[in-house]
Amino acid sequence: MAIIVQKYGGSSVADSDKIRNVARRVIRATEGGNDVVVVVSAMGKTTDNLIKLAHQISDHPDERELDLLLSTGEVVSSALMAMAIESLGHKAISLTGPQAGIRTDSSYSRARITRISPSRIKGELKRGKIVVVAGFQGINRNFDVTTLGRGGSDTTAVALAISLKAQRCEIFTDVDGVYTADPRIVPNARKLEEIGYEEMLEMASVGAKVMHNRAVEVGWVYGMPILVASSFNDNPGTLIHGGIPMEVRNKVSGIAHDLNVAKVTIVGIPDKPGTASSIFQALADAGISVDTIVQNISAKGVTDLTFTVGQTDLNRAMEVVRPVAKSTGANDCISDSSVGKVSVIGSGMQTAPGYAARMFKTLAEENINIEMISTSEIKITCIIKDEKVPQAVRALHKAFDLEKV
Amino acid sequence: MAIIVQKYGGSSVADSDKIRNVARRVIRATEGGNDVVVVVSAMGKTTDNLIKLAHQISDHPDERELDLLLSTGEVVSSALMAMAIESLGHKAISLTGPQAGIRTDSSYSRARITRISPSRIKGELKRGKIVVVAGFQGINRNFDVTTLGRGGSDTTAVALAISLKAQRCEIFTDVDGVYTADPRIVPNARKLEEIGYEEMLEMASVGAKVMHNRAVEVGWVYGMPILVASSFNDNPGTLIHGGIPMEVRNKVSGIAHDLNVAKVTIVGIPDKPGTASSIFQALADAGISVDTIVQNISAKGVTDLTFTVGQTDLNRAMEVVRPVAKSTGANDCISDSSVGKVSVIGSGMQTAPGYAARMFKTLAEENINIEMISTSEIKITCIIKDEKVPQAVRALHKAFDLEKV
Repeated sequence: MAIIVQKYGGSSVADSDKIRNVARRVIRATEGGNDVVVVVSAMGKTTDNLIKLAHQISDHPDERELDLLLSTGEVVSSALMAMAIESLGHKAISLTGPQAGIRTDSSYSRARITRISPSRIKGELKRGKIVVVAGFQGINRNFDVTTLGRGGSDTTAVALAISLKAQRCEIFTDVDGVYTADPRIVPNARKLEEIGYEEMLEMASVGAKVMHNRAVEVGWVYGMPILVASSFNDNPGTLIHGGIPMEVRNKVSGIAHDLNVAKVTIVGIPDKPGTASSIFQALADAGISVDTIVQNISAKGVTDLTFTVGQTDLNRAMEVVRPVAKSTGANDCISDSSVGKVSVIGSGMQTAPGYAARMFKTLAEENINIEMISTSEIKITCIIKDEKVPQAVRALHKAFDLEKV
Repeated sequence: MAIIVQKYGGSSVADSDKIRNVARRVIRATEGGNDVVVVVSAMGKTTDNLIKLAHQISDHPDERELDLLLSTGEVVSSALMAMAIESLGHKAISLTGPQAGIRTDSSYSRARITRISPSRIKGELKRGKIVVVAGFQGINRNFDVTTLGRGGSDTTAVALAISLKAQRCEIFTDVDGVYTADPRIVPNARKLEEIGYEEMLEMASVGAKVMHNRAVEVGWVYGMPILVASSFNDNPGTLIHGGIPMEVRNKVSGIAHDLNVAKVTIVGIPDKPGTASSIFQALADAGISVDTIVQNISAKGVTDLTFTVGQTDLNRAMEVVRPVAKSTGANDCISDSSVGKVSVIGSGMQTAPGYAARMFKTLAEENINIEMISTSEIKITCIIKDEKVPQAVRALHKAFDLEKV
């Protein structure tokens, strides 16, 4: 009997009607003879409300206590989901993260799964039950409850699918799947039937928020196929897997973009070993993620170093970078938050010539100036004026023939 | 170092301000050098709201799932309470029922504590922490969460106090303690400084709702002193304990009453072995608690059997009793819900003459007709017309000199 793991997010279980709808979908999944394990997030705004309550009590809530507090949201959904399935005549049981055997390290609020002991889940499946697992949580070696942080329930689902040797993991959310570009910008964007893990990671990292990268990474490492689909309709969704033959697949999967970008340039930095390192170490120590980094060749022993950060991190990044830049002898440190990022994503692009050229030519024809360029094996990214991003996405979508299958 | 267990009910932790107030009280309790364990109920109406949600999902929610669902309410309060104590500069940790080592049987929604393994609590106390335990819950041998049913958090507190060999258990609620009569009926009712377990049980069973009998019973068995006091002021409260010397204590502790009473009479029942048993077995099978039972001596081989039940159980009781009464050959089965119960409570009353006589004389002087009489070693109860109950309570309170210490 094949095992399928399904995950439903907070908006899919936001009220009792939605929970009953999901229960019907879950039961349908068993009808092909599959064993089904369901992972649920907290209902709607539950987590936000619990965080608000904690901050009414304390300016700096203890993180162990906060994790225990937040974990109750998913426990509530899982118990209600099991009730809903039972009320439709099927056997079900809910399990908390600890009961499901999800062991983690002790990094409260961002715990990593260290091991899953799925014997309880397997036993309940053998007894003919649909097993509903509270997402986002686990237990550390002291039997204290931990939460997995952002994307936690997606990660719970993929990790469970792996440990149960499931046929696949299905992530149900409020979008239909992964598109060749944001349909709000490109009306004829096409939903992808399938995509590789690597391209999916790049699509997500440049703003196509469908599921959290962390869960995709876990799926990639263990080769677990992940279906992303809507919980509100029966459209087929997008299958993320590793089985797409490299040579035959369409080289470009999609055009991604991100408007939450700010650019920092350190002007006239002396070109000597250790300067870049001192700057990025300072940013790392402050917990600021740096994205694209570009440094030009130096002229007269000095160079300009440019990098991008999320807009919300810009002020802190400038505070951190200014003194370091000064101590290295740089001339100035300037920022610009009116930029955006547009990327062409596809595997094997660097081995096939002409993709970068076609991207730059397309932007030139649209009269869009490229401020920075960064490439990886499966991605070419340009930083451009933010107001030009929608136009760039539309033009690139057309230039790479993405509206056609 | 003495250990004190404090329990705070739902109205004492209903919002973040109240939680902070309780946190201050808890910290004050540590200042005498005591180790403090706090047991909390769910905030305000949380449990009711979760039950409502469950019934939106299912007409008959699975009881295992319902217990897991409801247990989250106390977990939320305990995490918030620990945060509140920490924010005031003291070390604290919250523990779920399972983490606190509270093992129960598997009777969901009314589980009994079978054993407490307090090693985690003791370890945290040794580390200088105030330990906050989620009340009302435990874990069965399958590691499934159970709830203890009515009075559950009181029972958690008393059981923990016993297993930790605490100096005493303090139950904080929205009343000041145990009074000689309901102060809303008898304005000069006096708060008792102390009361024996047995009298406390009788006071509660006749309607003086301060804490649940189940917790008092557990305290009695193990001789754990229980202080009942208000969480909203610093009045001294009432200490329930077993150390009051029998011969010197005031014989009458108080006058209790109950208006939630209905009377069922089976008229003309044949006076032969087994008839009463068949009736009360049927009621027990239906889960209906029977209170006072009176059977008069028989005349001509038939007798009348009268008993009382809670008013909410009356309809079901009549449905159960009618066919059984008929099969035993009884003439009729009649009910009356316009009755109430008034009781004089005090230990050693049966060995000291005159108490029953004084009660009956007092009611007679008030022109109140006694419909049924029942006595135990520490209680004399009369069933009278419900509309006469307040007058009876006032008259008895005066007749037994209860306004004086």
